[in-house]
Amino acid sequence: MSIVLPPEHLQKVLGYTFSEQRLIKQALTHRSFASTHNERLEFVGDAVLNAVVGRSLYIHFPKLNEGELSRLRASLVRQESLANVASELNLGDYLWLGEGELKSGGHRRPSILADALEAIFGAAWLDGGFEAAQSIIERLFVSRIESIDPARALKDPKTALQEWLQARHHALPLYEVVRQEGESPNLVFEMSCSIPALKVTTLAQGPSRRSAEQLAAGEALGMLKEKYPGKAPRRA
Amino acid sequence: MSIVLPPEHLQKVLGYTFSEQRLIKQALTHRSFASTHNERLEFVGDAVLNAVVGRSLYIHFPKLNEGELSRLRASLVRQESLANVASELNLGDYLWLGEGELKSGGHRRPSILADALEAIFGAAWLDGGFEAAQSIIERLFVSRIESIDPARALKDPKTALQEWLQARHHALPLYEVVRQEGESPNLVFEMSCSIPALKVTTLAQGPSRRSAEQLAAGEALGMLKEKYPGKAPRRA
Repeated sequence: MSIVLPPEHLQKVLGYTFSEQRLIKQALTHRSFASTHNERLEFVGDAVLNAVVGRSLYIHFPKLNEGELSRLRASLVRQESLANVASELNLGDYLWLGEGELKSGGHRRPSILADALEAIFGAAWLDGGFEAAQSIIERLFVSRIESIDPARALKDPKTALQEWLQARHHALPLYEVVRQEGESPNLVFEMSCSIPALKVTTLAQGPSRRSAEQLAAGEALGMLKEKYPGKAPRRA
Repeated sequence: MSIVLPPEHLQKVLGYTFSEQRLIKQALTHRSFASTHNERLEFVGDAVLNAVVGRSLYIHFPKLNEGELSRLRASLVRQESLANVASELNLGDYLWLGEGELKSGGHRRPSILADALEAIFGAAWLDGGFEAAQSIIERLFVSRIESIDPARALKDPKTALQEWLQARHHALPLYEVVRQEGESPNLVFEMSCSIPALKVTTLAQGPSRRSAEQLAAGEALGMLKEKYPGKAPRRA
């Protein structure tokens, strides 16, 4: 039987002590453990995380446009990134999980870790006001934001995907129009980006073929990096 | 030549006077008018809007789960809804638009109105802190949130779509699996929902076929309602 740590040390690391301890407890409770679980808090936390990180990026990168800010934020708050932050906090040691999740290693599962981290942000907002949530989030993300090299992080995703595939001797991705709707200037294109050999297909929408392709390519590259962390498959 | 109103009256209606008037001016400036325009502010404003509305819904509807809260929020902050709020504020009268946008009625275009409204929320956050943005947003959205009937608003989207189509004598939508990925419990299904006769196809992802179908159906219904406001086409 695994032991769940009480959240005192976690709160020290976060730099915030909850007035209502039931809120941090709820944030650390997976739905498999109890009916009062962290999913509603995660909804609030996801929103405050996006807002705080968005504002920090706005201030830190005065020359970037909104699309670029949006892409940087997406990379900071994607499940994989949040799970990394959660791992650094040893969040898994504080989680209340049901029997099945415990046995299958739920306290190391990226989705469970990322959701609990967001729930903590939401709980902090409800407990201590917006500034409480903001200070926890900024403490965890400020170094990540400051270490972003926009030129590298914002490399055109189609190029980055192409380079990733070529380095592994794979064929180029296929881009196809899935849907085209509306009238100028409100056209919407939906493009797919497929890499059949690696069983990845993504879809994205944008106001032009090119913008939708870039988004789909960026998502495909993200999926490939998650699917094949470290050594990636080369074509035989 | 149309006259742009100075933003004094608008600030009275919003219940907030900017310390830095250049920020409200920027929020009201479309990219067609000047290089210092509202798109970056819109990025910040979109995030604070989602956070504030999300928290209000969380508090107002203690029994709803995160998926339901998410659907309610999406309906409140979709472009059409924001354009309605903007119209009630006569926001179009305060917008700085380039010549071309002016001539083509840009000050009544939903996307331009919605974007400027979000930019105002972002500008208020930067100008007066989070509470300034929160109070403007709550003032504009509180009655909308209080008038939500969750039972009606959250009617199962597949059923709602089916009823909408049947009332207009159209065939039922087609649902198809576009993609299936990952392994349990992290399965991802991508489903399409098509209504060929009305040229609408949507895609959505979810952890099950059913959840992805519901999301795709909800999006299709939203698109149909936007495409055919008021009287909708009946099959001949």
